[in-house]
Amino acid sequence: MKVHIITVGDEILIGQVVDTNSAWIGQQLNLIGARVERILSVGDQHEEIIAAISQALNQADIVLMTGGLGPTKDDITKKAIADFFGVHMAFSQPTFEHIERLLQQLGRPLTEAHRHQCFMPANAQLLHNRMGTAPGMWFEYDGGKKVLVSMPGVPYEMEYLMEHEVLPRLRQHFPGRPIGHRTIRTAGEGESRIAERLADFEEHLPPGMKLAYLPNLGQVRLRLTYSADTEEAVQHALDAKAAELQALLPDIIYGYGNEELEHVLGRILSKRAWLIGTAESCTGGYIAHRITAIPGASAWFGGSIVCYSNEMKMRVLGVQPNTLIQHGAVSEATVREMVQGALQVMPIDVAVAVSGIAGPEGGTPEKPVGTIWMAVGNRERIHTHLIRAGKDRLKNIQYAGTVALEMTRRFLQALED
Amino acid sequence: MKVHIITVGDEILIGQVVDTNSAWIGQQLNLIGARVERILSVGDQHEEIIAAISQALNQADIVLMTGGLGPTKDDITKKAIADFFGVHMAFSQPTFEHIERLLQQLGRPLTEAHRHQCFMPANAQLLHNRMGTAPGMWFEYDGGKKVLVSMPGVPYEMEYLMEHEVLPRLRQHFPGRPIGHRTIRTAGEGESRIAERLADFEEHLPPGMKLAYLPNLGQVRLRLTYSADTEEAVQHALDAKAAELQALLPDIIYGYGNEELEHVLGRILSKRAWLIGTAESCTGGYIAHRITAIPGASAWFGGSIVCYSNEMKMRVLGVQPNTLIQHGAVSEATVREMVQGALQVMPIDVAVAVSGIAGPEGGTPEKPVGTIWMAVGNRERIHTHLIRAGKDRLKNIQYAGTVALEMTRRFLQALED
Repeated sequence: MKVHIITVGDEILIGQVVDTNSAWIGQQLNLIGARVERILSVGDQHEEIIAAISQALNQADIVLMTGGLGPTKDDITKKAIADFFGVHMAFSQPTFEHIERLLQQLGRPLTEAHRHQCFMPANAQLLHNRMGTAPGMWFEYDGGKKVLVSMPGVPYEMEYLMEHEVLPRLRQHFPGRPIGHRTIRTAGEGESRIAERLADFEEHLPPGMKLAYLPNLGQVRLRLTYSADTEEAVQHALDAKAAELQALLPDIIYGYGNEELEHVLGRILSKRAWLIGTAESCTGGYIAHRITAIPGASAWFGGSIVCYSNEMKMRVLGVQPNTLIQHGAVSEATVREMVQGALQVMPIDVAVAVSGIAGPEGGTPEKPVGTIWMAVGNRERIHTHLIRAGKDRLKNIQYAGTVALEMTRRFLQALED
Repeated sequence: MKVHIITVGDEILIGQVVDTNSAWIGQQLNLIGARVERILSVGDQHEEIIAAISQALNQADIVLMTGGLGPTKDDITKKAIADFFGVHMAFSQPTFEHIERLLQQLGRPLTEAHRHQCFMPANAQLLHNRMGTAPGMWFEYDGGKKVLVSMPGVPYEMEYLMEHEVLPRLRQHFPGRPIGHRTIRTAGEGESRIAERLADFEEHLPPGMKLAYLPNLGQVRLRLTYSADTEEAVQHALDAKAAELQALLPDIIYGYGNEELEHVLGRILSKRAWLIGTAESCTGGYIAHRITAIPGASAWFGGSIVCYSNEMKMRVLGVQPNTLIQHGAVSEATVREMVQGALQVMPIDVAVAVSGIAGPEGGTPEKPVGTIWMAVGNRERIHTHLIRAGKDRLKNIQYAGTVALEMTRRFLQALED
């Protein structure tokens, strides 16, 4: 299955928006054994869009388009598709009703632009978009041998349509040889160190099985891919190799598939009926945000105190002035007292605290940008940890968040064992 | 000047790497009045690369390529270029000496792969790459009327070459017509409602001026683009139209260019020497995270209390039990008391509070998922606001964060006026 992706929008060509959609689509298609051969970005120009569709449908089996479906005048993908197929634009009553309902919920008025948005190429099969006003569109070409799909460019709308409408249909339309994947999630060790530990494992992989390393700020996902004649053979081989990995890397593997560190923490905490809380200085609420992004987090998350100033650390968390004077806000002693304060002030059972210099300013020779102290503890014991991250503020915040969550997981895991 | 960009690499097609280079190049070219008409990504395949070059040089004046120049086996851009031009590969002694020096500095050994890397298409003009081992390459085509440039895919190497070698040469080779952009940022109103308010404005745009809408979760960026004979004429026309927009949409425009809502808040607060704090229930620290992602936020951000449970709302923020019983945690009365509590507990001058049902569970007929109350205030007055968002937890959190920040901006702005 050869796939071309076409993204439409001047904002991509002038670099105002980075095209992250194509990478996401590439990953998803890779998982069902389809091969993206080209990604093409063109501007909001009728003739350019038609030329791109024409060439793509000539060379690929599947063409996925994103962008250019909104209600404003610069969104012209639909008209270009209709002209390519030589069909007229037809009013879609279901789309109109969906938009009406959506706007009612949001308490917004229906405008002429919304009505205009309901005209679709007459040969389109509409794909329901629960996340926005513009439906996806599915077109068959060359007697159904080829497929063109058009989706909105807003990432979460495109992702919703891909997951719920496009991928299931593609699997049905182009049934292929069974292919399977296992994703094994690790934290706390770098890609090259893991590769060293897995050198022997990699050498003895069965023919055709692939191992990919997907590193991201303190985490490395390992992905096994395998294809065979039957679904059972695929699953059997992947099960066996995933079990081997678990035995080789028990200390750093925290989960599988789409399971994030936060999910694992939630599972362990829910089992104990414990609540966790955070006391955050340089991470500024990022850890609390990651936790509360998980549905149902209220069952195991109590709350957070973001103490950005020394005054806040003293006044709300009860950190001793002396500690701040003697050791500074970025110190082992301070994060220890932040944990103690968090356990006292909030209705929680375990606390994690972070204080560091996220940058780009604020570093000193002894404590350069990237110096970050963290602590995790309950009323019995507190563990502390120092990391030295890089110079990029946002990356430092994200990296510190991941390390703090992994440190918390290990703290809780040790209580289980 | 028409430009095509070609990025080479399987890693882009399978989504392992997001192509950020093209956006960066697009921005730079815009500034010199060149127009990127296409961005094409192809895999590490000889024939694919040649086909891409051939089509691009046929349609564009300038073709910029990135990727595929490293020492590993899958990096085959150079050979494809040589075959396209029908020239042989020639050993470059200066490149070899540069690599030797570079490796010596890094204390790494010279390998056969490095020597292999010194073979270049015989017609290439080499561009010195101070940041890495692979030089850039400049090719003239069609008697110098067209140019092909090949650069490494590593972002900082590509950026170095563009800034120091490619852009100066392009400016010299193709002296062009000036082009300019203005980005105007709005929050609090949907794309189609704005389009309605701007219907007359759009109809009377000068010939050749374009207006684009870039919506994203509660915000819409408006982008004006214009080209004219002189830089002054471009800037003059854009200034005039940007001023008209400001007059038409004074209530929803919060900033220009790359300025985020958080930056604007920081500017207003810094001027007053005020600190802001947040009291967050359903947003769970997300607003604090957005604020603290801005460098220097400690000058105007005090801290945050994330009160996820009723107990935390009462114990830390002093919300009255009676208020929670009578009105519920998601109510105007509760967010009001959260603001009051935040102002009392934290060393801050203005507070913003959010409490809602982010979903996917927890909705009731009277308060469905997406019901979110927010309040902003100081010691003199408190404003409240109710939004009805959608069903997606993360989108609801992000949307509520944007609305709360915009509400805070308007609150502070009203104090200025």
